[in-house]
Amino acid sequence: MTGGDGEGLRATRRGFLTTTAGLVVAVGSGFGRSAAAGMALSGKGAPESARSNGTQIEPFWGKHQSGIVTPAQAHTYFTSFDLVATKRDQVVELFRQWTSAAARMSEGQPAAAMDADAPAPDSGDVLGLAASRLTLTYGFGAGLFVKDANDRYGLAAYRPEALVDLPKFVGDQLVETRTGGDLSIQACANDAQVAFHAVRELARLAYGVAQIRWVQAGFRADFGAKETPRNLMGFKDGTGNPSANDPKAMDQVVWVGDEGPDWMRGGSYVVARRSRIALEHWDRMKVGFQEQTFGRHKLSGAPLGKKNEFDPVDLEAADQDGNPIIPENSHVRLASAASNGGAKILRRSYSYNDGVSFTAERWPPWRQGMEYDAGLLFVCYQRDPRTGFIQIFDKMSKFDAMNQFVTNTGGGLFACPGGVAKGEFIGQRLFDSA
Amino acid sequence: MTGGDGEGLRATRRGFLTTTAGLVVAVGSGFGRSAAAGMALSGKGAPESARSNGTQIEPFWGKHQSGIVTPAQAHTYFTSFDLVATKRDQVVELFRQWTSAAARMSEGQPAAAMDADAPAPDSGDVLGLAASRLTLTYGFGAGLFVKDANDRYGLAAYRPEALVDLPKFVGDQLVETRTGGDLSIQACANDAQVAFHAVRELARLAYGVAQIRWVQAGFRADFGAKETPRNLMGFKDGTGNPSANDPKAMDQVVWVGDEGPDWMRGGSYVVARRSRIALEHWDRMKVGFQEQTFGRHKLSGAPLGKKNEFDPVDLEAADQDGNPIIPENSHVRLASAASNGGAKILRRSYSYNDGVSFTAERWPPWRQGMEYDAGLLFVCYQRDPRTGFIQIFDKMSKFDAMNQFVTNTGGGLFACPGGVAKGEFIGQRLFDSA
Repeated sequence: MTGGDGEGLRATRRGFLTTTAGLVVAVGSGFGRSAAAGMALSGKGAPESARSNGTQIEPFWGKHQSGIVTPAQAHTYFTSFDLVATKRDQVVELFRQWTSAAARMSEGQPAAAMDADAPAPDSGDVLGLAASRLTLTYGFGAGLFVKDANDRYGLAAYRPEALVDLPKFVGDQLVETRTGGDLSIQACANDAQVAFHAVRELARLAYGVAQIRWVQAGFRADFGAKETPRNLMGFKDGTGNPSANDPKAMDQVVWVGDEGPDWMRGGSYVVARRSRIALEHWDRMKVGFQEQTFGRHKLSGAPLGKKNEFDPVDLEAADQDGNPIIPENSHVRLASAASNGGAKILRRSYSYNDGVSFTAERWPPWRQGMEYDAGLLFVCYQRDPRTGFIQIFDKMSKFDAMNQFVTNTGGGLFACPGGVAKGEFIGQRLFDSA
Repeated sequence: MTGGDGEGLRATRRGFLTTTAGLVVAVGSGFGRSAAAGMALSGKGAPESARSNGTQIEPFWGKHQSGIVTPAQAHTYFTSFDLVATKRDQVVELFRQWTSAAARMSEGQPAAAMDADAPAPDSGDVLGLAASRLTLTYGFGAGLFVKDANDRYGLAAYRPEALVDLPKFVGDQLVETRTGGDLSIQACANDAQVAFHAVRELARLAYGVAQIRWVQAGFRADFGAKETPRNLMGFKDGTGNPSANDPKAMDQVVWVGDEGPDWMRGGSYVVARRSRIALEHWDRMKVGFQEQTFGRHKLSGAPLGKKNEFDPVDLEAADQDGNPIIPENSHVRLASAASNGGAKILRRSYSYNDGVSFTAERWPPWRQGMEYDAGLLFVCYQRDPRTGFIQIFDKMSKFDAMNQFVTNTGGGLFACPGGVAKGEFIGQRLFDSA
């Protein structure tokens, strides 16, 4: 087979450019369609929805990384990497490249310009698609700093105190190949192919430096911007979340402040957990039982005994016999700030659906067979995991009635450094100071 | 934990109804939002796009099953079941229930009315979402008729001749737990949660009668109604497909006619193949090499040597040395009707992305590690698989240059009976005649 020279074009995702004697010329090749498609979807003159696959771009550069307080997109592709580089310079160079590629892709460009005579620098599978609100959020795992007591990159002294090893919680069934990792990238976009494409390009740039350890795709159905989405258990999920539109709350709950270190200021810590839900069992429960488990009404999302979704959760309310209306072991009670010394986190979870796998049931009817490997990719951001997720989940892991239906099978904790200014690269302040 | 009585409501997905002394009253509980959300997405007065998550409904009843010539939705959830029923009546009853639930869900209703005092008859996770163009396409595998030489349901004599056992093709690496099955349901919708929800409800109705054997989720990015979508290899996929808008072509290629049997008239045969693509390798190839493999240009989709996507594929064209412009072993040549005695199929494939799995590479750089378990859920419909997919793929499996990158790991062949008239159930003409 002979190597053809293809069409010899350099491409951007929204208009191909061809280089002729140094001249860059726009070619009307039909690839400028994304903007038009975006318009068609959102209607003439209608404002573009947060969920539309149009031309909307989430800024990559800024004080904070995007993808944290950004309104959740429809799809995610969360990826954990193991570093295999032997030298710090390789890691620095990787972050330089990842920064450049991320900034390009966030604007709907290919990871690099196309060139028919070289191994394709971009797979091209999203040529013709727009930015789709792509965000790429980077995180550092403990292994970047020290791995197996080995200070591979001279960064051991710079591991933040808050980047602890996650404790083993009661009931955890963590699969090693789905857990941990030295680096994380959470890609989110309104199009699943755009999110996957971004990671695929970033992983290619990492050949020889970092390799994928685990990935988890997730989705959120479009319930409309004003509605709290329902998760696969059929309940509204996120009602009690602090508002990402409240900068004061975000400063308090999400963003690292003066406690630093410097490179973490404006950053956050992400906890991801792959929570498999026994949907077959859940679906056999009476709605009333499900509501006692959650502590909320299924249809309205209101706390038990209340009418409206956003009515306050009254943990003191009791029935005529003096029993709490919201059960002691209900999910909403155990997750509440009041039950956890005021601890709060910003949840930004996705449902996941990985098909079926063979499962032997532990309850009646004791069936053995293929069951859904589906549930929640729980994702939360916080200023300090010790006073955030760990504080909250310690009690929940022991008492939450929902644990009967949920098994955590993987995930990790990563330090997401502050945002990137133009000219910088991701985590530069760490590498410069170390 | 005591069982609460919930909100005691009967629900439809687009407006809750409560029964009071036999009176059905509409309640303004905020669940009537789907229609409004659909409008917001498509813009005031703008026509609803085929890809919008609005209120658009694909009719369930009709001469043909929906989901075959229906314009492809954004998501699919293909499911294969093993029948465990011992009696034919159980199977008939299952299809009665599946018909009723499918008709309801296709209109955006729950699978059954909600009742807080019974095990939830619908998971409720799509309450508030509209129909999202849900289609449910049912198929009968060989095992419905005869399994292990056992005529379980008295149907052995009615197995259509065209429902052959698929031959083992060169290169197939079929995993048993991903292959075959007695029944199939392909759910397609513009929302992944709606497609999964539909199968989840149908699988619940099948408890004790049929159980899931394998599933495969898939997606198509939104390239706009006028553009041929790109698959994960970065090439346009579907350019040479016959037009689903051409009833004459569909009668010729897709729909079973007088050759029958009677219950298959207006039906079709579906072949599904889980085709894993070695994306890491593909991404390392030069674009020119990729184009020689496909026989088409990557950016435009034009046949090699041509300018425009829909230019005819000229298999006779040769270069100055007399070598064919479109290589002998290229995908487009081997798939063409001209290379296969005129054989045609209607492809309706989806990309799939099942994360990563451990893979030992067979080529340089001989890496061992986590590689994408992603590729194509190849789906095609045809009047007779013997003169459709099997005829075409026999040669392709031996010679297609693309086989270097593609491994078929599962799938099946199913007979999709003709459409269902109101009052009938799926496949009724088979069960009535047998």
